[in-house]
Amino acid sequence: MSALDYSNDPKRGPHPLIVRKDAPYNAEPDITDLVKNYITPEEYFFCRNHGPLPDITESKHLIEIQGIGIENPTHISLKDIKENYEKSSVMMVMQCAGNRRDGLHKVKHTKGVIWGPGALGNAVYSGCRLRDVLATVGVTTKIKNLSKLHVAFESVEQCEEDKCYGSSIPLSKALDEFGDVLLAYEMNYSTLTRDHGFPIRVVVPGYIGGRSVKYLKSITIQDYESMSYYQRRDYKILPENVLDEDSANNYWCKVPSIGEYNVQSYVCNPADGMHEAAIANQKVQGYALSGGGRSIQRVDVSGDDGKTWTTAQLYQPAAEGDNCRVWGWCLWTATIPTKRNVRIVSRAVDSSGNVQQEYPVWNYRGVMNNSWRTVDPHTIEMSNI
Amino acid sequence: MSALDYSNDPKRGPHPLIVRKDAPYNAEPDITDLVKNYITPEEYFFCRNHGPLPDITESKHLIEIQGIGIENPTHISLKDIKENYEKSSVMMVMQCAGNRRDGLHKVKHTKGVIWGPGALGNAVYSGCRLRDVLATVGVTTKIKNLSKLHVAFESVEQCEEDKCYGSSIPLSKALDEFGDVLLAYEMNYSTLTRDHGFPIRVVVPGYIGGRSVKYLKSITIQDYESMSYYQRRDYKILPENVLDEDSANNYWCKVPSIGEYNVQSYVCNPADGMHEAAIANQKVQGYALSGGGRSIQRVDVSGDDGKTWTTAQLYQPAAEGDNCRVWGWCLWTATIPTKRNVRIVSRAVDSSGNVQQEYPVWNYRGVMNNSWRTVDPHTIEMSNI
Repeated sequence: MSALDYSNDPKRGPHPLIVRKDAPYNAEPDITDLVKNYITPEEYFFCRNHGPLPDITESKHLIEIQGIGIENPTHISLKDIKENYEKSSVMMVMQCAGNRRDGLHKVKHTKGVIWGPGALGNAVYSGCRLRDVLATVGVTTKIKNLSKLHVAFESVEQCEEDKCYGSSIPLSKALDEFGDVLLAYEMNYSTLTRDHGFPIRVVVPGYIGGRSVKYLKSITIQDYESMSYYQRRDYKILPENVLDEDSANNYWCKVPSIGEYNVQSYVCNPADGMHEAAIANQKVQGYALSGGGRSIQRVDVSGDDGKTWTTAQLYQPAAEGDNCRVWGWCLWTATIPTKRNVRIVSRAVDSSGNVQQEYPVWNYRGVMNNSWRTVDPHTIEMSNI
Repeated sequence: MSALDYSNDPKRGPHPLIVRKDAPYNAEPDITDLVKNYITPEEYFFCRNHGPLPDITESKHLIEIQGIGIENPTHISLKDIKENYEKSSVMMVMQCAGNRRDGLHKVKHTKGVIWGPGALGNAVYSGCRLRDVLATVGVTTKIKNLSKLHVAFESVEQCEEDKCYGSSIPLSKALDEFGDVLLAYEMNYSTLTRDHGFPIRVVVPGYIGGRSVKYLKSITIQDYESMSYYQRRDYKILPENVLDEDSANNYWCKVPSIGEYNVQSYVCNPADGMHEAAIANQKVQGYALSGGGRSIQRVDVSGDDGKTWTTAQLYQPAAEGDNCRVWGWCLWTATIPTKRNVRIVSRAVDSSGNVQQEYPVWNYRGVMNNSWRTVDPHTIEMSNI
């Protein structure tokens, strides 16, 4: 693979994101900033790239649409998308599958950008519905063998691991009347920036961010998942016994790719959840979310290593909206007593009764970490520190 | 409430179910029987009743349909349902929210029938789609304020706690093209028996059994959940601090009712997962499932108290079917070394990356227990026994 050229990446002045990797640019906010707003402003929104940022001229950009069930493959322009399709908005969490990878990396070496707990944000995306676009090329839920079909997306983004970024989702998710999958050209009511996929990206609510392909250049209906590296050899929860690249090679094809993410929460303020002194009435803030449109029904917070728990106050306007599923996150607060040098932890329960497990279940790619305990890097033992 | 008369309940000869309560009749199979078949035969299918079994004459039975969006309330007969609507089948798990309540009851007193791990089964139900019936009275996804509407069901069943059994689901679940909600008149290709709701019942795939109302007598579209005891004061995950009926009274209205169930698995063979001697190659069998159409991606099995885990072989034909969601369960087998007097445990991961938590999170109604550890009743401490 030829070396990638990052010279045309946007110049970045001083800004509040913590850079996890320079090239490609990967950065996340400080978590105390993250929970300041229910809708995450772009300045506090994590950036995840797999290569140099494309610099696309909107008026010249076309998206190719082809594959099973499409008699006449076509190209669609941004003008067409903006003028001829109903504009729709969805408020949703964008969360990287590697959010909180650092927690698993402390257990054992993982592969990937070592994200902290800030690789997510809650935004309003606007654009046209993917199902509306597919309907105009004749693809509807009446298509034969729907349960076996996928929609594959390719990106203009040149990448480190593959010729371009690519991914797919089940066609049924794309066509689901309550699935809210968009081809988005706005984020938080402004034109997408290059960091977030200008001029157009897919947004797949309730799924890991890796499926929301940026800089979209093609849409293909096919009877297999995307052949992309990012679908086939990445973003999978490998079993605990897979420790390295060699043994992973025997497992990629046996393990399903991740779609929906799991139930999650984190203490964001105080930032490290730690104190040198016990505090009787510590105000604690954090986030909680779950995949697939599931809302949060409860968050428990503990200042004494999980012995006792206090029920948090939830702020979750996404659950009161007009969407039939809940794609936005939940911010929560609690006031609890804390102990000296004991980390405050939170434990969320989603609307399906799923609970965050106590200890991390390690996996080589370090994805979907949602345990409420973390590992003390000094002792490399499970602990509440 | 007047005393209920159980004299017309079916006479029950010797049969393989373990009776948890006589009147109303509540019984579950031995778990080694339960995993003998992928499709659970009726003889091994748990029975959950809230009162005397109705004895309905099919030819005289009508279902009332009324409420928001229905200009002309109507009654529909079984003949109409069978002759004028397309017959559809769904293979799905029916699981009581109280399955494995015994595990929580050992932690602290819970309210309800003390079910073991056999209050579930995997069946093929056949009938007409609820959405087809609703379409004929003018209720479709075009209805105003869909996200705020519910379908309430009432049963002919007279109950201990309310005038009749009743429950509701979000209207969007009923209308969801991929939701597979049926008005079923067959189970495993035979006419429903009285135990399972003859002549007609609702089946709501991916939801707790309590929403699949038997002996259906009315369907109402309304802008609030069912007012029934079973929706409002039962089948909710109360916080851990709610210890009794009095404190529960302050919480019922604050806690959401359960819809989808959570990720679950259990070791069924050997039955108690215990041995008096260590065995090098113990064959272990069990079940795994998750709610909301999520499949099982992995089951880990441990014979050494969770120190090491072996990946089980999964048998999950439901995931290969024509449905876009997975409603059937997963049976699994593993061969592992076991230790003397150490209980074998299993831990499932569903397609959304949710994992069973290690320790039970107790709740007063003893619902949705999916921990992989249980409590040793002799020591009343958490343990792997």
